Order: sequence, then C-alpha cells, then structure tokens
Amino acid sequence: MRETRISLAHGNGGRFMRELIEDLFARHLHNPGLDIQADAVRLDLPPGDVMFTTDGFTVQPLEFPGGNIGSLAVHGTVNDLSVAGADPLYLSLNVFIEEGLEVALLERVIRAAAEAAADAGVRIVAGDTKVVRRGEAAGLYLATTGVGVRPAGLVLGLGAIEAGDRVLVSGPVGDHGTAVMLAREEFGMRGDLRSDAASVHPLTSALRDLPGLRFMRDPTRGGLATVAHEICRARNLGLRLDETAIPINDPVRSVCEILGYDPLYLACEGRVVAVLAPADAEVALQRWRALPSGAGARLIGEVHAGPARVVLHTELGGQRILEELEDDPLPRIC
Amino acid sequence: MRETRISLAHGNGGRFMRELIEDLFARHLHNPGLDIQADAVRLDLPPGDVMFTTDGFTVQPLEFPGGNIGSLAVHGTVNDLSVAGADPLYLSLNVFIEEGLEVALLERVIRAAAEAAADAGVRIVAGDTKVVRRGEAAGLYLATTGVGVRPAGLVLGLGAIEAGDRVLVSGPVGDHGTAVMLAREEFGMRGDLRSDAASVHPLTSALRDLPGLRFMRDPTRGGLATVAHEICRARNLGLRLDETAIPINDPVRSVCEILGYDPLYLACEGRVVAVLAPADAEVALQRWRALPSGAGARLIGEVHAGPARVVLHTELGGQRILEELEDDPLPRIC
Repeated sequence: MRETRISLAHGNGGRFMRELIEDLFARHLHNPGLDIQADAVRLDLPPGDVMFTTDGFTVQPLEFPGGNIGSLAVHGTVNDLSVAGADPLYLSLNVFIEEGLEVALLERVIRAAAEAAADAGVRIVAGDTKVVRRGEAAGLYLATTGVGVRPAGLVLGLGAIEAGDRVLVSGPVGDHGTAVMLAREEFGMRGDLRSDAASVHPLTSALRDLPGLRFMRDPTRGGLATVAHEICRARNLGLRLDETAIPINDPVRSVCEILGYDPLYLACEGRVVAVLAPADAEVALQRWRALPSGAGARLIGEVHAGPARVVLHTELGGQRILEELEDDPLPRIC
Repeated sequence: MRETRISLAHGNGGRFMRELIEDLFARHLHNPGLDIQADAVRLDLPPGDVMFTTDGFTVQPLEFPGGNIGSLAVHGTVNDLSVAGADPLYLSLNVFIEEGLEVALLERVIRAAAEAAADAGVRIVAGDTKVVRRGEAAGLYLATTGVGVRPAGLVLGLGAIEAGDRVLVSGPVGDHGTAVMLAREEFGMRGDLRSDAASVHPLTSALRDLPGLRFMRDPTRGGLATVAHEICRARNLGLRLDETAIPINDPVRSVCEILGYDPLYLACEGRVVAVLAPADAEVALQRWRALPSGAGARLIGEVHAGPARVVLHTELGGQRILEELEDDPLPRIC
C-alpha cells in the first residue's frame, strides 16, 4: 500500500480495498485456511462438540501496555471458547475503520492479532472491512467470532453449580482494566503495569478432565464481582469471598486506592474463575500453579445455600455485600 | 426496558446491560440454540463440509424501503454461505450502538433480524453488544458471522471457471443501491423502489447438483461490474457482457440516468451471479425462472480466452470496456 492513511475508498469494494486486503490483511494473517477470494471457507474440524462465540471490541486507547485492540480481540474470543471447555480453532475478524486512521497503526493491530492467533493455535480464516466517516468508530472497532471443539460429553455451566462448591481464580485481578486506564492521557499517570491479556486455554484445558469441574468464566467487563453475581443468580445460591485470598498486584491496588476504584470490578483479559466440587478444588489449584499463567492462582471463596448475594469477608473479620455493578467505573476497556 | 434511549450503561456489563439483553435481544431472537448465560454455544451440525463467513454492516440510513440494517445483516451472511454452496444454519450478531439511539429503532432492527433469520432457516445463537459515545457508530453498526454446511465434495470457486462458460444473473441489478440512495434525504427524491435484499438460498440450492456449476456470487458492494472483474482476474480470462440482456428495473434506470450513476456498479442484496459450463446454462436458467426470486433471471454473458477485461456489448452494436471501480459511487450501502 502506498497510502499512509485509510480513506473511504479503502472500503468501497474496488481497487483500493483489494490492495488493503491483499497488502495488509492477507499478508499478516496469511494461513492455509484463509482464502480472500472466497465468500465462505471450509473449516476442518476434529470430532467433538462444535462451539461458537462472538465478541466486539471498542477499547480506548487502541494500544496499551501489554497489547492492543488486535491481540485483545483474538484473546477475548479464544478465551470465551476456552472457558466453555473447547479448544479454539478458527476465528473471523470484522474491522470497522475510521477514515484517516494511520495505516501503520492498523498494521500494528493486525500484526498483533496474527501473533496472538498463532500463539493460541487458532487461524483467522474469514474477515470483513468497513471504512466509516471521520469522527466515527474512534479509530477502530473490531469483532471476532470463534469456532472451537469441545470434548464430547463435557458439560460445564452456571446450571451445574452446587452449594459447597469452591471458587478459584487463576491469578491477580484488575491488571487489564488498570493498564488501559493508565494508558489514557486523561489520568496523567504512568506505571509499569501491563495488561494481563492472554489466551487462557492452557488454564482451562488443564482442568477439563476433572469430574468436579462445574463452570469457568474469564472475568472481563465488570470484573470478578460481576462473575460472582452471575454465580449467585444462576442457582439462587450465596457466595462467600475471602478478601484476603483474592490476589491483586500491588501497583493495581495502589492505583485503585489513589483513584477510588475497586479492583474487583475491573476487567481481566487473561484470568479464569473456576467453580469446582470441593473434592477437586485442591487438585485444580495445584494444576494451575504448575502453569506459568497460573502461578498466582488462589482459592477465593465458597458457594453456599444462604441468600443469593455475594458477601466479602474482609481482612479485619468484617463482612460487606458486594453489590451488582450499576455504573461502569471504566468504560471502553475491551 | 424502561429507558427510551440507549445509554453508555447499557454496555457496561452490569444491570442495565443485562436488562437490554434479556428484554430486547433475547426476547426477539429467542430460539432453542440461544443461551445468553453461556460464553459459547454448541452447534448441532448435519454431515457435510462446515463453511464459515463474516460481514460487517454500516448502511446509512439504518432503515430503507424493503429492509433495515438488521435484516440486511442476516441476509448478507446467509447469502455468502449460500453462494458458497452451503445451507446456512447459525449466525452470530455483533452490535455496536451509539449512545442516544432510540430503543424503539433498535427494537425494529432486532425484530427484522429475527424475522429474516426465521425466513432463511438460520438461528442467531451468539451475540455481543457494545455501546459507544455519542457521535460514534452513526447509530448502529452490525457484524454477522455465519456457519453452514455444504454437501460433501461440492467444489465451487473462481478457480473452476473455464473459457466458454456462461454467466447468468438471477434478476434485475441495482435495486438495493438505488433504494438506499433514495432513502437518503440529501437526494430529495422519493419513489416506489424497494431493496432486493433477501435470502438467495432458494436460488443457490436450486443449482447445486449441476455438474457444470463453477461459481456463484451475490453482487453486493461494487455491483455486477465488480463480480465481472473478479471472474476475469481469477483465471486471466476475458468476459463479454451483453448490455441488452442485463435486467435493470425501469425506476432504477431512470434514477441512475437522472443522478448519473451506472446501475452495473450498484449493490444488490438478493441476486446471484452464476458461472456455468455451456451444457448446464440453459437448465440453470429454467430452474431459476421457476422460482419467485428468479423470475427475472437472464443469461448475460460468456467467459472467453481473450484479454482479461470486461467488455460490454452495447445496444447499438458497440463495445465498451467496463472499468474496475475506483471511487465508490454510493458509500455505506451495506
């Protein structure tokens, strides 16, 4: 491509668009499954249950320590398949580009998406590009849809949760939300914090064969607190969380104290919350801790037959109810 | 939902978002495959090749005679699977909503998507919603990704085209582009024109068993002329199109003459261009004409071994080269 900025002509179905697709998208995303001339591509799927999920991405800023909107869009959908118990295999990528976006930035985003896909073992095999007027789309929105295959017969879900089940988290919470927040110039703060954005597939596949595994979810928008509420609501059960057990990195804690945020409501993009029968909780924890991405895993709480609310047992022996999120503390985090 | 307009809180992962998903999306899109609590859903697929495609939608205005962005987003992806020879089965739907959008408009869009899906026999089983700041997203962008199943062994594609092949179109071209254009207030024109947006699956499945079927495509962005160029470029063959044979509805012709557009470059959203070996062209035409959506089907041209360009044989016996689209005559048409 000779142009340095995206113009409306890059989205019109003609020559400029073909050059954008061939010179930028196809060059970085090249893989045996991608056919830019086809209306639809054939997926080669191993035996098992075919799983399907989708997610949209509007993060601001588009680049942040530890990733950008491209790697995030891949990790987000890879992770939704992973927590459902599947092996992620194929992705589609939709790109909405604002007229005037720097081609170099778009290239960094697509390169990061390609690298994240390669790391996670998924292929981006379908895509579409739309260019919208200056002022729309805040530079770039992405959407990814994923297809994966789950071992036949594996049933996971909120509906499987029972009183007495244990709740684990795979590592410190709130890093992604805090890293993106600090990348916004409005806060005028800088730090060493990096997003935790990553594929959680190594974590989820490590637990899949445990008969007591009930449910897994990655705590993204709304954070750990929102997943805790989903656990309560689904079966009308109570949830006790031990505040001292919940891992939070020191820089995240400091930034949240200064700015008045609660890290339990901030997004992670590379963590897993898992609910397991008591008999399997300890082995799950050991398996996670044996993985690089699970070194900080902790047992953080227990489901019980009490009223359907999330109660946080605090460091000083007190209790407080963790309310459902009403107003987003940090919009545009994913 | 009690609110009449979408606010940023409808996209934050908390209570407002849950209400939006339960009261609007899940209510209209309800089907046995949709599980709004799951991170990923299981697809039940019959035997055959699993096919995958995606498309984004930024049409302006959001509603136009014959459809809206919701029905268009379903038809677009259903049609990409159909022209690849597949039976469309499942869709995901991504929604990017501008803060301040009327809930009633969003509801009309989602209802139209649900109806289009039911008509085409596909289920919308996965979705995601993002709300962006006022001024972004021009009200609403959508993306749909589709999964379908193609009869095992069916191979269609630009690569299969041979010199001597015939080119058919299933009906009049340019209706969608013209209808959307007229719906824009800037043109100050009104007419009876309706978009041709529809599922083309009845048309494509009618030809699938013909051994001489080489390739099918729905002429969307860039219109018939762009598909014609794709046919030439793929195998470095020439294409002769007979201008008098190309069906164009009278109101489309009139509007294009007044405003100076060429209908051959305007989008259709419910037509198919098919390339067939000469032996099967006539039977294909008869099969199409027997269908309500193929009543206006015509044989419009022939692939030949000459130079790789599209030559239009005009009414008066002349010839003109149909150039590749450079500048979009009508952006934001899909």
